[in-house]
Amino acid sequence: MNRVLAHTGAQYPILQAPMGWIARSALASAVSKAGGLGIIETSSGETENCQREIQRMLDSGLPFGVNLPIRFLKDDAMLRYVCESGIRFVTTSAGSPAKFVAPLKAAGIAVYHAVPTLEAALKCAQAGVDGLVVECSEGGGFKNPEEVSTLVLLQAIREHTDLPLIAAGGIVDGRAMAAAFALGAEGVQMGTRFVACAESPVHAHYKQAIVQASTTDTYMLNTQSSPCIRALKSPYTKSLHEAGLMGPEAFKGIQDVYFGGDMNAAPALAGQSAGLIHEVKTAREIIEETVAQFHAISARLGQLASTSSFG
Amino acid sequence: MNRVLAHTGAQYPILQAPMGWIARSALASAVSKAGGLGIIETSSGETENCQREIQRMLDSGLPFGVNLPIRFLKDDAMLRYVCESGIRFVTTSAGSPAKFVAPLKAAGIAVYHAVPTLEAALKCAQAGVDGLVVECSEGGGFKNPEEVSTLVLLQAIREHTDLPLIAAGGIVDGRAMAAAFALGAEGVQMGTRFVACAESPVHAHYKQAIVQASTTDTYMLNTQSSPCIRALKSPYTKSLHEAGLMGPEAFKGIQDVYFGGDMNAAPALAGQSAGLIHEVKTAREIIEETVAQFHAISARLGQLASTSSFG
Repeated sequence: MNRVLAHTGAQYPILQAPMGWIARSALASAVSKAGGLGIIETSSGETENCQREIQRMLDSGLPFGVNLPIRFLKDDAMLRYVCESGIRFVTTSAGSPAKFVAPLKAAGIAVYHAVPTLEAALKCAQAGVDGLVVECSEGGGFKNPEEVSTLVLLQAIREHTDLPLIAAGGIVDGRAMAAAFALGAEGVQMGTRFVACAESPVHAHYKQAIVQASTTDTYMLNTQSSPCIRALKSPYTKSLHEAGLMGPEAFKGIQDVYFGGDMNAAPALAGQSAGLIHEVKTAREIIEETVAQFHAISARLGQLASTSSFG
Repeated sequence: MNRVLAHTGAQYPILQAPMGWIARSALASAVSKAGGLGIIETSSGETENCQREIQRMLDSGLPFGVNLPIRFLKDDAMLRYVCESGIRFVTTSAGSPAKFVAPLKAAGIAVYHAVPTLEAALKCAQAGVDGLVVECSEGGGFKNPEEVSTLVLLQAIREHTDLPLIAAGGIVDGRAMAAAFALGAEGVQMGTRFVACAESPVHAHYKQAIVQASTTDTYMLNTQSSPCIRALKSPYTKSLHEAGLMGPEAFKGIQDVYFGGDMNAAPALAGQSAGLIHEVKTAREIIEETVAQFHAISARLGQLASTSSFG
């Protein structure tokens, strides 16, 4: 039995990443209705809005998850809310999950922590998490400046733990899902792909910028400081790249990017996978195509095994 | 039929990368005897020595290849030698293969060019190469500063060409080989893994540094200039990393690293995959374990396909 399915209640082990402001019930319910797992963000810090979004998902009866970005939570209100609300699956991120694991598990919630390195994965395993989201360097958004690719990091973590692993970074379809499963993952998480999804609430300019980007159209920014991020190339991010540093004020205009469509108001977060996204699709198209392609590729590899050949 | 096997004459589509000074007949013949494809380097610029090494491989009767790093060849002596010697397989790199393709193909040689981006791949396809070595950002040695990971770059190139693809970067065994094949590769190339191989001619200190490294123990150096390289972290490469720039004099001591074991004499080239290498093995062990693991993982994925499940 696939443990990610057991922990989440989803039909397919395909998660939608918890992008701040974006990962709310409109997107998450579309993903969950299509058989994947929608996740509601709380990194926006908008506690009441996020709780309302969580309640909508609870009311829908669909499987879903909530992300708790530990360092960004101003108090324990969201943790308490999540523990008391009947939620089944939580991903934690941005900090040590040590203090969150006990209350979440006591509430019957499966806890996966997002890790960018083997060292972080080993600490989380010790802290008693139920699984790991392996966040690799090709992905978008907040990154560890010590870059390790999906191919390498999945293997390194798989060697050291039996926990279920969800691969994140560079994945938009069934090709990369099959590759991730070959490397020992039991699930995948897609961020950029679902930002450029029909049900995503972001402005058409942001979706089009992802669709038009090539695989070399992102920057890793602020690698010498924090937060280090991967974002689309733009005149604005070019200036940050050349400056080498980025202050917290860089994000002030993030909602103007997301919902106003001003692609120079702040860094528009995206992964290298933007270069693999060529059209806006519905969540259902993305998920059904991913599953079909995953099984077609797996069957092709199975043929190689049964003939001990290479193609 | 696997086209990499057809082009190379090897038993398994597993290539040994052409590391300067290191990829000579001692290593290449061990790889080819074990069923892989050894490749002789010419990037050292030591024309006579390299021709002697090529002659040794020809005398052995083993399948093998030669790498021609276009920008580093001081004249056309090596190209003419290769065309006249009865060699069957050449990888070109570091520059445009346009002028090399016609004479090599006229000599009956299959030509694969090493590319770090989709744009380079499309140019090579137009130039008439027989295949591509897809050199991705997690790999060691000379890199494109526009980083694209194996997971993303293989998919991007596979979408645009039917040429046979050899995946390079982050691969040390059958897990990553299965992942690469899921993404559309027909072969893999390993560099760092074969540097830390029993038959590799390098000093034990270099092999041990690879064995001891973690996945975060490499730097991308000189990303704003040329050559951009990935090398092991050391006090010396830390100083280059902090300086942000690296002049050509940085490589003066490279043979003291390789053969003298002084790990601070120059950057010791290696990929993120160093963190996946835990012992020095023979070429035969590496290749046989890779093939067995590749088929075991392919069989596991085939099972998922035949049951339309996820594990």
